[in-house]
Amino acid sequence: MKINENFNNLKQNYLFAEIANRVRAYAEKNPERELIRLGIGDVTLPLAPAVTDALRAAAEEMGRKETFRGYADYEGYEFLRAAIAANDYKARGIDVGETEIYVSDGAKSDTANFTDLLSADNLAAICDPVYPVYNDANLLDGRPIRLMPCVAEKGFLPEIPDWRADVVYLCFPNNPTGVAATADYLRGWVDYAVRNGSLILYDSAYEAFVREPGCVRSIYEVEGAKECAVEFRSFSKTAGFTGLRCAYTVIPKDLSFDGQNIGRLWLRRQATKFNGVAYIVQKAAEAVYSEAGRAQIKENIDYYAGNADELKAALSGLGLPVWGGVNAPYIWFKSPLPSWDTFDKLLNEAGLVVTPGAGFGSCGEGYARLTAFGDKEMTAKAASRLSAVKL
Amino acid sequence: MKINENFNNLKQNYLFAEIANRVRAYAEKNPERELIRLGIGDVTLPLAPAVTDALRAAAEEMGRKETFRGYADYEGYEFLRAAIAANDYKARGIDVGETEIYVSDGAKSDTANFTDLLSADNLAAICDPVYPVYNDANLLDGRPIRLMPCVAEKGFLPEIPDWRADVVYLCFPNNPTGVAATADYLRGWVDYAVRNGSLILYDSAYEAFVREPGCVRSIYEVEGAKECAVEFRSFSKTAGFTGLRCAYTVIPKDLSFDGQNIGRLWLRRQATKFNGVAYIVQKAAEAVYSEAGRAQIKENIDYYAGNADELKAALSGLGLPVWGGVNAPYIWFKSPLPSWDTFDKLLNEAGLVVTPGAGFGSCGEGYARLTAFGDKEMTAKAASRLSAVKL
Repeated sequence: MKINENFNNLKQNYLFAEIANRVRAYAEKNPERELIRLGIGDVTLPLAPAVTDALRAAAEEMGRKETFRGYADYEGYEFLRAAIAANDYKARGIDVGETEIYVSDGAKSDTANFTDLLSADNLAAICDPVYPVYNDANLLDGRPIRLMPCVAEKGFLPEIPDWRADVVYLCFPNNPTGVAATADYLRGWVDYAVRNGSLILYDSAYEAFVREPGCVRSIYEVEGAKECAVEFRSFSKTAGFTGLRCAYTVIPKDLSFDGQNIGRLWLRRQATKFNGVAYIVQKAAEAVYSEAGRAQIKENIDYYAGNADELKAALSGLGLPVWGGVNAPYIWFKSPLPSWDTFDKLLNEAGLVVTPGAGFGSCGEGYARLTAFGDKEMTAKAASRLSAVKL
Repeated sequence: MKINENFNNLKQNYLFAEIANRVRAYAEKNPERELIRLGIGDVTLPLAPAVTDALRAAAEEMGRKETFRGYADYEGYEFLRAAIAANDYKARGIDVGETEIYVSDGAKSDTANFTDLLSADNLAAICDPVYPVYNDANLLDGRPIRLMPCVAEKGFLPEIPDWRADVVYLCFPNNPTGVAATADYLRGWVDYAVRNGSLILYDSAYEAFVREPGCVRSIYEVEGAKECAVEFRSFSKTAGFTGLRCAYTVIPKDLSFDGQNIGRLWLRRQATKFNGVAYIVQKAAEAVYSEAGRAQIKENIDYYAGNADELKAALSGLGLPVWGGVNAPYIWFKSPLPSWDTFDKLLNEAGLVVTPGAGFGSCGEGYARLTAFGDKEMTAKAASRLSAVKL
């Protein structure tokens, strides 16, 4: 029995597992030290009351024979897809209908599982630095990857390549750099994709954090995107669902490549390897769009945006170059030290856990990422510890 | 952009999607006809009170800052893995520990996703008839498959092959035939696997329905199985979780192939492509093992077993050869007609939805599957309609 040989091309540990290991070792040696975790992008505010109310009501339904629900539709319940289409797209003047929406348990799963649809010899264009999942999922299939360096001089936006890729991964607002994209910038990518017959896989998991009016939330704000792009979204960061698991993927109904309809293929993939999202979780996601839900969610997003402002100010105060934090929950800064040294120094001298930029790719070397998802008081304390560190 | 060419090797529709299409067409033409669905194996009893209580309590926790939980561990919460190990294994004298358990959102996902670990040129041995997912997941990877015919004369148990397979898929109690396996029978497979260096992927999603003492619930009841087998289990049929989504996979801690530890590889796969199971769902699964939960679940299993007895008696009364239904929620019978003709005849003449055996593979031709997961009164009505049909 032979193992998939592509496992040898992955790093031994998933980035966040490696961070967890170092933090565990430090915490065991320094049990009295108060750690502040600004590493993994996990939320800290509880679920909104509208959401927990929906969960409890749905649990009641599942406990009564007349209202019990078994297997859900592979593409998600119609009530949720309709709420998504109405609120996240139509209300913003974007033409996306409920039949173009596919509900799932996470944008990580979707971006990784989407590789099941791709031929193994397609060339994938992936940013550097980048969320590691895009690379790892393609490496596991043995698919060729060409990296697109994202550098400070270009505001960490990848340049449109002068070479042809079959598949392009883009993520805006970006993880890890926190930079957002304008429609003008993305129009270049849509033109590129249409011209080259390329598929754009667009991750907009952080769209809820966009504050500046010129920045797009959806690639479908750009004309022509429905001919070349799939969009991934999540309730994880928008509504604190990291521990509840709900996301969705948008596939325009006429999107076809290689003579095949992409939505139909994705549904076939999901029907084969997935069994839908829990009814109670889909009801919880629907509640995010209720009047009360929208107000409560906005408060949470504003809370995290306040954290981002505070961290950004602390880093700027140190004279360090800083990106992100305005339209994203991530702050990206340049350190005078190598990434993992910055990680170790901030852990050892300030009890702060950050994510080393090098963990996102070689172009991330020398940088580090902070998340704004912490508790407000702890974040304030982190900002003051940061201000005291000599980097 | 080229599509994964292996999609062309799949049937256009997943079996149950095809059944749903035919039923929808019939229902539209015959809106007044009361349909009884004995097709897809979906449960109908509501969640047990112990489970809905746990869901509500966990929703409360998720709504308070002090008890909120974000991302879960990739392998599942320790409290659930400990409950599984203690109740499903140690209490039955089977040596499986909590570090050998990996929680997921479904046994379908796990059996399909496990192919990510396998080299594309491994030979997979798969039963015919069979749950379609094993075939489809391997076809999508382009992995060679050799089918093992399961025939009435051998009680639908596959014969140990005189050829070598790298990976063997087994499912007992079986879907679709409903037959269970004895330890003596499975010992032959464990010997085969150890001798050939093969990996057994053992699906025991229906173990809760075993009634006869000679039949095994776990492959680890057979000595040597921990050297060659992975076991898949689910809360779907055991505790009515089809609409809640929780399952687990057991990987013995020392299980290695090709010089690599299988548990470590699976965790790496899950960390890359999956983000854990909702805390509230894991708390619900834990409640299945509480004293109240165990009693409530047993009542539900007995209820479905009663349905199986009734359907089996009706088919036997027609003089048709029948298998399963004793240690499984599925009843498998031989019809004088081809499978899809049997399907259409029972739909048109009796308003009954069954699963055509041919949908599970060519050796299923001439057979059909009924599920015992229906409502008791409807199942009784189905049994009486069956008794009146001339097949």
